[in-house]
Amino acid sequence: MASPPIKRLLRVLAGETLSPPPWWLMRQAGRYLPEYRELRGQAADFIELCLTPTLAAELTMQPVRRFGMDAAILFSDILMLPYALGQGLAYREGEGPVLEAITGHADIARLNAVGALARLEPVLITVDRVRRALGPQTALIGFAGAPWTVATYMVEGGSSRDFHKVKGWAYRDPQGFDALLGVLTGATIDLLTAEIAAGAEAVQLFDTWAGALPASGFARWVIEPTRQIVAALQARHPGCPIIGFPRGAGILYAKYAVETGVDAVGLDTTVPPEYARTRLGQRVALQGNLDPVLLLTGGAALAAAVRDLKQSLGGSRWIFNLGHGVLPETPPDHVAELARMLSEPMGCG
Amino acid sequence: MASPPIKRLLRVLAGETLSPPPWWLMRQAGRYLPEYRELRGQAADFIELCLTPTLAAELTMQPVRRFGMDAAILFSDILMLPYALGQGLAYREGEGPVLEAITGHADIARLNAVGALARLEPVLITVDRVRRALGPQTALIGFAGAPWTVATYMVEGGSSRDFHKVKGWAYRDPQGFDALLGVLTGATIDLLTAEIAAGAEAVQLFDTWAGALPASGFARWVIEPTRQIVAALQARHPGCPIIGFPRGAGILYAKYAVETGVDAVGLDTTVPPEYARTRLGQRVALQGNLDPVLLLTGGAALAAAVRDLKQSLGGSRWIFNLGHGVLPETPPDHVAELARMLSEPMGCG
Repeated sequence: MASPPIKRLLRVLAGETLSPPPWWLMRQAGRYLPEYRELRGQAADFIELCLTPTLAAELTMQPVRRFGMDAAILFSDILMLPYALGQGLAYREGEGPVLEAITGHADIARLNAVGALARLEPVLITVDRVRRALGPQTALIGFAGAPWTVATYMVEGGSSRDFHKVKGWAYRDPQGFDALLGVLTGATIDLLTAEIAAGAEAVQLFDTWAGALPASGFARWVIEPTRQIVAALQARHPGCPIIGFPRGAGILYAKYAVETGVDAVGLDTTVPPEYARTRLGQRVALQGNLDPVLLLTGGAALAAAVRDLKQSLGGSRWIFNLGHGVLPETPPDHVAELARMLSEPMGCG
Repeated sequence: MASPPIKRLLRVLAGETLSPPPWWLMRQAGRYLPEYRELRGQAADFIELCLTPTLAAELTMQPVRRFGMDAAILFSDILMLPYALGQGLAYREGEGPVLEAITGHADIARLNAVGALARLEPVLITVDRVRRALGPQTALIGFAGAPWTVATYMVEGGSSRDFHKVKGWAYRDPQGFDALLGVLTGATIDLLTAEIAAGAEAVQLFDTWAGALPASGFARWVIEPTRQIVAALQARHPGCPIIGFPRGAGILYAKYAVETGVDAVGLDTTVPPEYARTRLGQRVALQGNLDPVLLLTGGAALAAAVRDLKQSLGGSRWIFNLGHGVLPETPPDHVAELARMLSEPMGCG
């Protein structure tokens, strides 16, 4: 029998309520840090940055070293999976990712699911290095994009405002689209299994565009693939906790928390903390959900919002985080201030 | 005492349940129609198009003439209000609107709230013309942007991905930001009052970016200005129904339906119809919420989705609409097919 976890993040994921709450920030390794910007130039492009273990491991460690979060999250990108499956990918400065859009069955058949894990070997080496480098208090979180969200980029060829290509395919040819999600679900299971084997102690599934689907599509293309991934990971690595982040799910957060089997849900900025506590907190641990703009703003507004969040969620199984990623314009000093505020005992605000 | 309404849209807004449901589509007058694209060139730019009554009235009528919706919605734009307040505005092809961003108190002081209504006179002439031209079955809907959403454009200087300027201001200086929303709330009340006086029989408040705010900001900058607008309109034009569309409100839809006083809520694509029926339908009439991508897709997927929506919401006070605006790529034939499906009696699917 495994001994109970001592890392604070893992204790909350295993069922404890801790005060002060463990914390980390989505996109905590990123452009807002001068040491990130300095290192970034050492890679030719963003893909090379993600696939060079020396660099990716260092980027993963930077925020933890500076701020002492309770978790490091692997520095990588959700689009490394389609890249590893053989889809053309480039990142253009200021424009976001550009992919060779896939449009149908023939494109799915060309995806190289068998070879993908080998191409992601550098990511697994990064996981291993970071795990060895982390102190005994800090957990390592692995991650992947959820199949629906990864599919939006693969079919739209990049970011999208209205998702009409990917939803058009899904609506016109749901079985064909299921086949794409099936490939992605299998590859995501393989990737996360390998990340855990390499040293990740928890994993997060980012479903950034879950909020683009109506209820019926959400059930089929968000909940069902997530449920399959959770079931497979639980079978292969029992006890490794899974955090799901169905951003924008709104009213469907409750269904997601009940039906997917995840251990924790990441709350986006719009979820009222009181609702999360009373309606989701019985089922899952909660993670979130300070508005990233408050961290950028700092000062009295940040202090008041952190105090309010501690009052709402402090009595729950709660991991402090943002409702979305750290904004590039965020002053690092505000993160230091946040760390200080979070470490204060409750009730002194 | 006023006689009861005979127009089907107004009957549902007054409390009746009708089968088949009345219908209209957000952005039903728009680029997907060849007759729109033909007329659009007659104005030098989009602002002139909105402020030329001959053209705006014709554009308002086009979809009703072609498809027989139960309502026409005034052809205009939510940014005509900041334009009328004196803020610099231009529309660049493929880029969306560009505004001279306002950043603080001095900019608010320069907004010309007194003169705004005079600059919007052409919009009111359009309302009057359309009302006279419409048949006895077709209601005319006026509209405005809700103060929060209009403020996002005014402060960001256009569209935004993360709203960090407008939220940054609101968080750093909530009283100052309240002053901006106060000006917009007053001007919106004046505009909608004038639209109703000119012939609008219902109005819709578009809060397109309501989903960008956390719960506390939603209460202060979405619910409170909306409540004030509804109260003022009810005092000035009792019985004129108000539809609120807090897009992306998610879990906060319920609070919005209870606290603002609107007669109906527009449901975005993510709201599960069953949730709307059971949790919102007791309080307000429902409007929505077919995914615009389904209308673009057409065929069996569209037919099945319309049938499902009729089964979920057919027994409620329900106005059929999309969950967001018609996409420019939508084939007009699909709208004709939708009109045919909607006119079928329930239970034959």
